[in-house]
Amino acid sequence: MSELDEDTALAPLGGAAGAFRARISDRWSIGSAPNGGYLAVITTRAIAKIVAQPDPFSVTTHFLAVARPGEAEVRTEIVRAGRGHSVAEARLIQDGREMIRTIANFGDLGAIDGATHITVPPPDLPPPDRCERGRPAPSAPRIADRLEVYLAPGTTSWISGAHNEIAELGGWIRLRDGRDPDPISLVFFADAFPPPVLNLAKVRTPWVPTIELTVHVRARPAPGFLRAWFRTRALARGYLEEDGELWDSAGALVAMSRQLARIQRA
Amino acid sequence: MSELDEDTALAPLGGAAGAFRARISDRWSIGSAPNGGYLAVITTRAIAKIVAQPDPFSVTTHFLAVARPGEAEVRTEIVRAGRGHSVAEARLIQDGREMIRTIANFGDLGAIDGATHITVPPPDLPPPDRCERGRPAPSAPRIADRLEVYLAPGTTSWISGAHNEIAELGGWIRLRDGRDPDPISLVFFADAFPPPVLNLAKVRTPWVPTIELTVHVRARPAPGFLRAWFRTRALARGYLEEDGELWDSAGALVAMSRQLARIQRA
Repeated sequence: MSELDEDTALAPLGGAAGAFRARISDRWSIGSAPNGGYLAVITTRAIAKIVAQPDPFSVTTHFLAVARPGEAEVRTEIVRAGRGHSVAEARLIQDGREMIRTIANFGDLGAIDGATHITVPPPDLPPPDRCERGRPAPSAPRIADRLEVYLAPGTTSWISGAHNEIAELGGWIRLRDGRDPDPISLVFFADAFPPPVLNLAKVRTPWVPTIELTVHVRARPAPGFLRAWFRTRALARGYLEEDGELWDSAGALVAMSRQLARIQRA
Repeated sequence: MSELDEDTALAPLGGAAGAFRARISDRWSIGSAPNGGYLAVITTRAIAKIVAQPDPFSVTTHFLAVARPGEAEVRTEIVRAGRGHSVAEARLIQDGREMIRTIANFGDLGAIDGATHITVPPPDLPPPDRCERGRPAPSAPRIADRLEVYLAPGTTSWISGAHNEIAELGGWIRLRDGRDPDPISLVFFADAFPPPVLNLAKVRTPWVPTIELTVHVRARPAPGFLRAWFRTRALARGYLEEDGELWDSAGALVAMSRQLARIQRA
């Protein structure tokens, strides 16, 4: 079993319908805090267990408090069970306190058809061996051991201190244990890169906590590396959006993400 | 009282904490269906009544079923009450059935400060008298009577049938009764324009129902017209994102929106 699957596994919680026991691993942490995208995979997997459809289409997660590695509960609720789409929620609870809440629309990415017209180009990345061997966050945290990341030249200017003032960042990514991406894992990958806003000199802290993250999964990813590009166009009074696009190895756009985050005061 | 305020008013529902009676007006309909952004203002206002902070920062609404004009209930839940931010949910219920669900993070847009770096430009719109007098949806629906809309030349190609294949649309907008925009109303304005995807010839229906709409409110809008720009970059197998930016009359970026929608089959 892959690290991601093992660390997001759910066991039925006796006595409560749609309730699960989870164990938050310390293997996906940045400092002492588990990565938000990792936690959102736990809640999204819980939702997948209670809806009839296999794939997340829209997944919104609100981050309420800083979870910690260890035991947790996930409690789910069907909001609407439909034929083509269902909507459901999941709450991650530790010590009786809700840490994150996810609401998701699920459908079947293998069953949809209709018009296609895509004008957003995939990121123009050099091959991995001409990228920078990326650390997924400035402090070389534990999550770095889970990932194989190659960052595009010119998008990691903050590491040397020579901030280039371009709040964009892209690269190649896959799980280090070789586990291929699937639709739910895209919720993780959408939050697994360093924040592009670090390229701005006025951002004096590496801590850019997510307030809310929404991921639209648009296709089931082909095996292999994902290509990703993230940008922040509006840092305003300490708050920012971060938009991301994820592409699979076959050149398909597989997810679009947007998060609202804030620069953590020192 | 303005039309928007009157038609989103909430009365306490006796006996249940955080429950309200609403009346969905037919004045904001497109065909027989009330506009989604209008409905989301009702749920967002309900959330505003139960949290300590005045302003929505992130508002996600899932559209579950087609509501109809008439009586409705709104039931709310505090997810997390914090000092700086609170998160809460609201459900709009008709005939015992949940029609929409909104989850929102509220804070105080008047109290935030921090770094600012904005690279997204405001839309380059000609003055209203050189725009097209817009109808907010192709069928000149009732909602059109509530709005003053001026659409940028070249963004309404579907009206004449000469589709220009550019899925972008922008313009000026304000409420016709002169009521100025406020933060909660931006949830409405983010869904009040025609879908830019109509500019594609392969989109053969004007019905592009929203699955999920997220609006980030970034500043309190100054009085007067809003400027807006919307674009769809990836219509894929009938599903699409629609990204929007809203600017106020003083030139401030006041909201960013993204929705997942689908082309309705005929």
